[in-house]
Amino acid sequence: MRASLLATALFTLLSGSLPAANPPPAKQKSPQAILDAAPASAWRTLDPANTLYMELAGGRVIIELAPGFAPAHVANIKTMARGGFWDGLNIYRAQDNFVVQFGDPDGEEAGKAKPYPVGTQTHLPAEFTRSAKGVHFDRLPDVDGWAAQVGFADGMPAARDPKTGKLWITHCYGVLGAGRNNAPDSSIGAELYVVIGQAPRALDHQLTVVGRVVQGMELLSVIPRGPAPMGFYTDPALRTRILSIKLASDVPEAQRTPLQVLRTDSQAFKDATEARRNRKDDFYTQPAGHIDLCNVTLPVRAAPATK
Amino acid sequence: MRASLLATALFTLLSGSLPAANPPPAKQKSPQAILDAAPASAWRTLDPANTLYMELAGGRVIIELAPGFAPAHVANIKTMARGGFWDGLNIYRAQDNFVVQFGDPDGEEAGKAKPYPVGTQTHLPAEFTRSAKGVHFDRLPDVDGWAAQVGFADGMPAARDPKTGKLWITHCYGVLGAGRNNAPDSSIGAELYVVIGQAPRALDHQLTVVGRVVQGMELLSVIPRGPAPMGFYTDPALRTRILSIKLASDVPEAQRTPLQVLRTDSQAFKDATEARRNRKDDFYTQPAGHIDLCNVTLPVRAAPATK
Repeated sequence: MRASLLATALFTLLSGSLPAANPPPAKQKSPQAILDAAPASAWRTLDPANTLYMELAGGRVIIELAPGFAPAHVANIKTMARGGFWDGLNIYRAQDNFVVQFGDPDGEEAGKAKPYPVGTQTHLPAEFTRSAKGVHFDRLPDVDGWAAQVGFADGMPAARDPKTGKLWITHCYGVLGAGRNNAPDSSIGAELYVVIGQAPRALDHQLTVVGRVVQGMELLSVIPRGPAPMGFYTDPALRTRILSIKLASDVPEAQRTPLQVLRTDSQAFKDATEARRNRKDDFYTQPAGHIDLCNVTLPVRAAPATK
Repeated sequence: MRASLLATALFTLLSGSLPAANPPPAKQKSPQAILDAAPASAWRTLDPANTLYMELAGGRVIIELAPGFAPAHVANIKTMARGGFWDGLNIYRAQDNFVVQFGDPDGEEAGKAKPYPVGTQTHLPAEFTRSAKGVHFDRLPDVDGWAAQVGFADGMPAARDPKTGKLWITHCYGVLGAGRNNAPDSSIGAELYVVIGQAPRALDHQLTVVGRVVQGMELLSVIPRGPAPMGFYTDPALRTRILSIKLASDVPEAQRTPLQVLRTDSQAFKDATEARRNRKDDFYTQPAGHIDLCNVTLPVRAAPATK
């Protein structure tokens, strides 16, 4: 509604006319129209040194890493990607309305486990949360049942607790986390999961989150669910093979997928989110007045060609 | 936590011992253990006259209808199922993190549209909400950003507004709704959608919801997403064929799938939900203290054999 009110005010200013006593509501701008009108500065280009390409038979899944949230895990993941750790391994778990998980299905079997590349750290601290101090946070005004404050930091959906001063990535659709055993510091980033269903926010700040999928979710979300408990496969042949996982910066430039994501501190992001929060058009006649953090769209586009 | 506190109290009572000054926390019962211990009366058997079987090449999707919420639509759907309306039609839309939609892809093309079975109503009132008066509502204590009160009614996730006195089914994962055009009363239940992603609660009380999938969601959630806008397919061959949709009561008894769902007014449901809300075990060390309506599991089991 903010966008349309603004448009009305602007129209009044430009036309010099006085608003009628009961002016008809201005036509609300759609989220897409807001994005189309956004200046180039509202978009940021993904950093290839911080972007993973997961190649599947069906295509490329593109992941933005979150080194600000999980520096040790992200560094380790980069080492493993450079060493080709996941190449030829697979997605060995797909649990409906929850997660797909990938890595080495034999990772816990001595003798069968694929060796980690040289330089891989085999023990890392848990990185469940980070200090919120000094971290730019684009807060949403919307109430959230799981956390005191929700919004975005480093392009990731996040929550913040003013009492503890902590900040963490929330388990929204497409978020990438590091699987672990019972010990909090038992993840090293070799076994990773992606959320494919209703946000399992009960996992928040109980696992290390390392990034999120920015393109290609539809390649992961359609993977046949495993019939065994927790979505594992009884027949290993049903697993989905990973051709490779590489850092974009290690891929020849001509083979990269240059993407831009909308900056969450841009006016266009605020306006598009508001247009969704209070969507009102010929179809949606009753604005919801609310948006859940995990319903907020983080727009992505092909980077414009550089001259 | 309630369940474990209860267990501690019971143990103290039975053993006659005094609790220590700082008693160790009792081992929390898992949701599964709670279900396993639930009495037969905690479960209700699905009514075959109110259950749809959607047969796909991959198996059977089982839907419980919600006549209490959408009596006219549900009656029309039963008429259409009896007349074989969906048999040989298809799932013609799959939009990632949103919905799959099925019915007649040519439904709006004169001359190509499949005729409705005899008795089908071609105009129905919008059934977006119902009066909450006199309807049993198992309310959750948890805050919700979209509605004043959330909980369950007729086995469906629902929200209630004490100001308007209205009750409606919420768009959680697996919910089945009737697609419509811009006019609120433009749905008749022929074109239906199922939520396959993060709950699109902005749709709440803006469409007529007619039921929910109780088994077989993993057959719908893996359907390849359509590449065209809104998840439609440019190539009709990519649509998923519906072998048939029948009322369970119209299927020979030997071919039925007898299911029971946990009653939402049972103590077992309350306890299992609480065990999820405040899950604490060797893996989850920090109870969330909250559960979102759409994260609540509605347990389903095979009906015990009758003697």
